[in-house]
Amino acid sequence: MAEQKATNVHWHEGDITREHRGELLGHKAATLWFTGLSGSGKSTVAVELEGILSERKVLSYRLDGDNVRLGINRNLGFSAEDRTENIRRVGEIAKLFVDTGVIALSSFVSPYLEDRDVVRKLHEDAGMDFIEVFVDCSLAAAEERDPKGLYKKARAGEIKNFTGIDDPYEAPVNPEIHLHTDQMSLEEEVNIIIKVLEDRGILSAA
Amino acid sequence: MAEQKATNVHWHEGDITREHRGELLGHKAATLWFTGLSGSGKSTVAVELEGILSERKVLSYRLDGDNVRLGINRNLGFSAEDRTENIRRVGEIAKLFVDTGVIALSSFVSPYLEDRDVVRKLHEDAGMDFIEVFVDCSLAAAEERDPKGLYKKARAGEIKNFTGIDDPYEAPVNPEIHLHTDQMSLEEEVNIIIKVLEDRGILSAA
Repeated sequence: MAEQKATNVHWHEGDITREHRGELLGHKAATLWFTGLSGSGKSTVAVELEGILSERKVLSYRLDGDNVRLGINRNLGFSAEDRTENIRRVGEIAKLFVDTGVIALSSFVSPYLEDRDVVRKLHEDAGMDFIEVFVDCSLAAAEERDPKGLYKKARAGEIKNFTGIDDPYEAPVNPEIHLHTDQMSLEEEVNIIIKVLEDRGILSAA
Repeated sequence: MAEQKATNVHWHEGDITREHRGELLGHKAATLWFTGLSGSGKSTVAVELEGILSERKVLSYRLDGDNVRLGINRNLGFSAEDRTENIRRVGEIAKLFVDTGVIALSSFVSPYLEDRDVVRKLHEDAGMDFIEVFVDCSLAAAEERDPKGLYKKARAGEIKNFTGIDDPYEAPVNPEIHLHTDQMSLEEEVNIIIKVLEDRGILSAA
């Protein structure tokens, strides 16, 4: 956990709550945290889900490893320490989105159990839904897809600290959702997620 | 500008755009950036505005110096370097909110011209509205209010780097909105802001 440096700061509770914003939007909020190897299909399922949610007039927003790393986390690299800070910041941003009433779709490799648990705790301590989605795919399948050509570069030693090659991936122990992207269709994957959102009362049944 | 550390990252453009989300919400998005001395009334006007926007079914979210410093920026203090990084991160978060379709209400002392201009440029380069609101109040009036007792502590030397006491405040040169909170009522202040939002087509006229 990052040290709290600033003192003399206190949480401001405004008049408008998360519940007010939920009424305005007509649905509840949550963070869906997609974790898995590069090439496992995290972004693919998040993009598809975003489209389905939009059709249902549900406000969601994708936080994406690449997008965030070009913005707020542009001063972070891929060392273990920087990965931890990357995930911590994204977790805090996702929490702000949930507080706004938005369904946050975070897709990050997020290879370390402890880092993901920090984000889970951030949400659960605030009474927010945190739904871990394990986007599971064998390394062989992910490496064969290699949509960005990154495995090839990692194997050639051109990229260091690459998850699955020379950096570990710690699989979720008990994720809320477990997708096997080398065995399921995209439609099946999205349906599983929608069902969980409905069962939890985040979305009304269609 | 923070150095871009991660390479091999590319912006993902999803199917759902800011325009789609604007249609879903029924209004456009923007960042309102409230800047001014501690005690000038930034949070007060932001909270009031948030309430008025909510009555009009407009989704807004307050990003607040204190709130953010307890979350994403908990590892930052008040040195010039940390203030700059604080504002940079908040600027990036505000931009994500605007991309989501939300009106971001950022209230931070944000004492340095250059830091605010970085955030302005971030928005304008992405075709986003950035509305700087100078929450202007004499140091004497802010110090007399001293709602958090911080000026007293700063004068006693218990807080260092306190804006207006032993750290500079660089006033906006040409802000979109200039509020004189020691001469205006809260209602007048909010009306001025609403008028600007309507004139810019961010809100429909009531």
